Amino acid sequence: MNDVVEDLTATLPPGAVSTDAETRERCSRDDAEWADYGLPAAVVFATSVDDVVQTVRIAAEHDIPVVPRGAGTGLSGGANAVSGCLVLSLERMTEVIEVNVAERYAVVQAGVLNDDLRRHVAEVGLWYPPDPASMSISTIGGNVATNAGGICCVKYGVTRDYVLGLTVVLADGRVAEVGRTTAKGVTGYDLAALFVGSEGTLGIVVEATVKLLPLGGREERAIVGYFRSLTDAGRAVAAVSSAGIVPSALELIDRTCLHAVAEWQGWDLPEGASALLLAKVDEPGDRGEELAGRIADAFLAAGGAQVEHAVDPEEVARLFAARRLAYPALERLGPVLTEDVCVPHSAVPEMLARIERAAADEDVVIANIAHAGDGNLHPLIIAPEGDDEAKRRAKRAFDRIVADCRALGGTVTGEHGVGLLKLPGAAAELSPVVLDLHASIKQALDPRGILNPGKAFPERSATR
Amino acid sequence: MNDVVEDLTATLPPGAVSTDAETRERCSRDDAEWADYGLPAAVVFATSVDDVVQTVRIAAEHDIPVVPRGAGTGLSGGANAVSGCLVLSLERMTEVIEVNVAERYAVVQAGVLNDDLRRHVAEVGLWYPPDPASMSISTIGGNVATNAGGICCVKYGVTRDYVLGLTVVLADGRVAEVGRTTAKGVTGYDLAALFVGSEGTLGIVVEATVKLLPLGGREERAIVGYFRSLTDAGRAVAAVSSAGIVPSALELIDRTCLHAVAEWQGWDLPEGASALLLAKVDEPGDRGEELAGRIADAFLAAGGAQVEHAVDPEEVARLFAARRLAYPALERLGPVLTEDVCVPHSAVPEMLARIERAAADEDVVIANIAHAGDGNLHPLIIAPEGDDEAKRRAKRAFDRIVADCRALGGTVTGEHGVGLLKLPGAAAELSPVVLDLHASIKQALDPRGILNPGKAFPERSATR
Repeated sequence: MNDVVEDLTATLPPGAVSTDAETRERCSRDDAEWADYGLPAAVVFATSVDDVVQTVRIAAEHDIPVVPRGAGTGLSGGANAVSGCLVLSLERMTEVIEVNVAERYAVVQAGVLNDDLRRHVAEVGLWYPPDPASMSISTIGGNVATNAGGICCVKYGVTRDYVLGLTVVLADGRVAEVGRTTAKGVTGYDLAALFVGSEGTLGIVVEATVKLLPLGGREERAIVGYFRSLTDAGRAVAAVSSAGIVPSALELIDRTCLHAVAEWQGWDLPEGASALLLAKVDEPGDRGEELAGRIADAFLAAGGAQVEHAVDPEEVARLFAARRLAYPALERLGPVLTEDVCVPHSAVPEMLARIERAAADEDVVIANIAHAGDGNLHPLIIAPEGDDEAKRRAKRAFDRIVADCRALGGTVTGEHGVGLLKLPGAAAELSPVVLDLHASIKQALDPRGILNPGKAFPERSATR
Repeated sequence: MNDVVEDLTATLPPGAVSTDAETRERCSRDDAEWADYGLPAAVVFATSVDDVVQTVRIAAEHDIPVVPRGAGTGLSGGANAVSGCLVLSLERMTEVIEVNVAERYAVVQAGVLNDDLRRHVAEVGLWYPPDPASMSISTIGGNVATNAGGICCVKYGVTRDYVLGLTVVLADGRVAEVGRTTAKGVTGYDLAALFVGSEGTLGIVVEATVKLLPLGGREERAIVGYFRSLTDAGRAVAAVSSAGIVPSALELIDRTCLHAVAEWQGWDLPEGASALLLAKVDEPGDRGEELAGRIADAFLAAGGAQVEHAVDPEEVARLFAARRLAYPALERLGPVLTEDVCVPHSAVPEMLARIERAAADEDVVIANIAHAGDGNLHPLIIAPEGDDEAKRRAKRAFDRIVADCRALGGTVTGEHGVGLLKLPGAAAELSPVVLDLHASIKQALDPRGILNPGKAFPERSATR
């Protein structure tokens, strides 16, 4: 093992290679609870594309796996180390290389934080829409590697929809620039789309060219409704959709989440509140007013007990605070295993009912936050620290939710990626033919299997 | 050669296999002028997925290439036959399999015409946005194979943005279902995106699941301006963009096109009209009114000589008639070689000037229609039938325009695909590393090279 570290240390800039136990431990995993991980031989902190090239070359020479890592905020274990590997951190590659106002795109290094990009381009009147809940702490490189979603994707799409081009370091250390900077382009295969969401298994994304939208011309209105039951809230979601309204956010928070937030923050909740729906529209003027009114009407008609409507940005932020605080409020109760199933819109109420049953049957606490407008549910399974039996029950509930999602025509991961946690779910969802396609493409681009091995798609076990 | 035809005839339904000279000639090429083509051994008209499977299997057994074909409206030669191949036509696979109103998607066979899908889903209040100029005659399968663009993509994106999932027959005859029907999903690699635009070189798309939008909530307003020079029109385009307005169409038609249409249709043109800009906005109510007004102001400020503004759908259609008629009007003058370069928005005026110089230097007629809002230009190079010297000059102008586009930071094909015509351009645009990636993926998915050989990307000649 020393050989590879010696080679890296001799080749890379001072301070780039860490072998101290604390750094190796800290960089050995992402935020996925209970996903397996090993301890890396070393952590490389790249500050340039060339650092990445050299690291991959040296790793290839020594036949040692490379596990790329952004901010480590992933929730599927996609950045978890395998024992003795090199973890390649891109968090120091934080340069915004170019913002092209006329062409509305930005070129950024992989380690730029999502929020930093957003702030940077806002200064010149532009907007980067993808807004994962982790936006203040996650990197664009990580967002690209997982094809991160977010709250506004119900209207504005996911990371993939904003990636025009990528610079990728391949498994043999060569650098590929794929994609384009023009508004349209179909020269050759859409390799940028192939790398988006591939979790560093086909190449390491070092730079991204992302499409931007005009920042102006939008006015946010929030519509918030408390419901006495999850079913009522589910009917409200369906009513908004079938009215042909495309909100810019439509989030659901269940009773368990609500109470965790209220208890923590000392809020009073409306009596009997079992679910909260948070919607936004961003059309300006009369049109926005009209749409907000129609959403409020749909909420009331579905049994919404208390419906508020806000335009003032601070008031909008206050109403959405419950969403922002839900995850940290639950983490106070114990380690949170985060689900990420995505079901057809019409199956959301049934899926929520099945999650409730799973919680009851397995005797675990499951709270729900959901991108309800997309059918993308995040059941948050909580098990008290140190309670191994509770942990086993939580894992059973996790597996059951994945199976229920599949039974309802859903997909096992809506936006977090397969990583490690969803390998069994992906094995159930993807056909043997599609798994073979994955293996063929992986073999073509990384024949020695050194890039983030074992992530993103399951081996086709029956034939191996 | 008879063996393969015998096998096909014995296996496929009656009437599926044609070997008559007229059919083989008719199906030997698409609409790309002057692209090479050979005569196929037979044309198979598939009516089911199984027909496609059997055809590919038999072709593989006999080691004979398969060239898939939709309606043959392509403009790059992507559907052109190689001598002795099987042309596999999907035009008889015209079933709309499902329209899911609640989930807003449709599942269609590859041979469904774009316009037929649009009409079909409009009946239930839904909308399929991608609108290539060929929409009344081109198939969804062909649109997917080329990642077709269109007029509204400046706001609504291209075919890729609407493909949720695909059923693809692979080179060994296996059937892969890739993608999903849910709003979001990141289970495994984005194989649907890889197949979109791959021109049938990686698999044959037999069914597509496409995302739909609500039909309602839009109101089309057209803004039309005549300009005394292309430069003025170019400045108007830049002004609209830098005002942060995203129109739902922004089309440019130059003097040559305008006059061809006016002569054909007996229209009077405003005196000195050298360019026409056609814009649409589709925001409803006051907001649409405001945006249309701002676009009209931008047109006037840039020197627009006569600016009209329409809301009535028939009037909107009348104003856009010049766009619709441009291509047929020019075809009356001789075979039209269609360019498809895409440059940065800011480079549109310079690119138009270079096209004018190319026309002058090579002594050919070049008319321009452009998706100006996307920087996607379609110089239409016209050479009189039977004039070989004019044809050579036209080809030189074509090559020069491709080189100029590259020099201005553009891409050699914005929406028509590489096919055959853009192989040299793609060889210049794509780096050796990226060309190797293409070859690796092609090799992984079609190791014997029987699917539409020689299309979509150039061989890396230096290393072969």
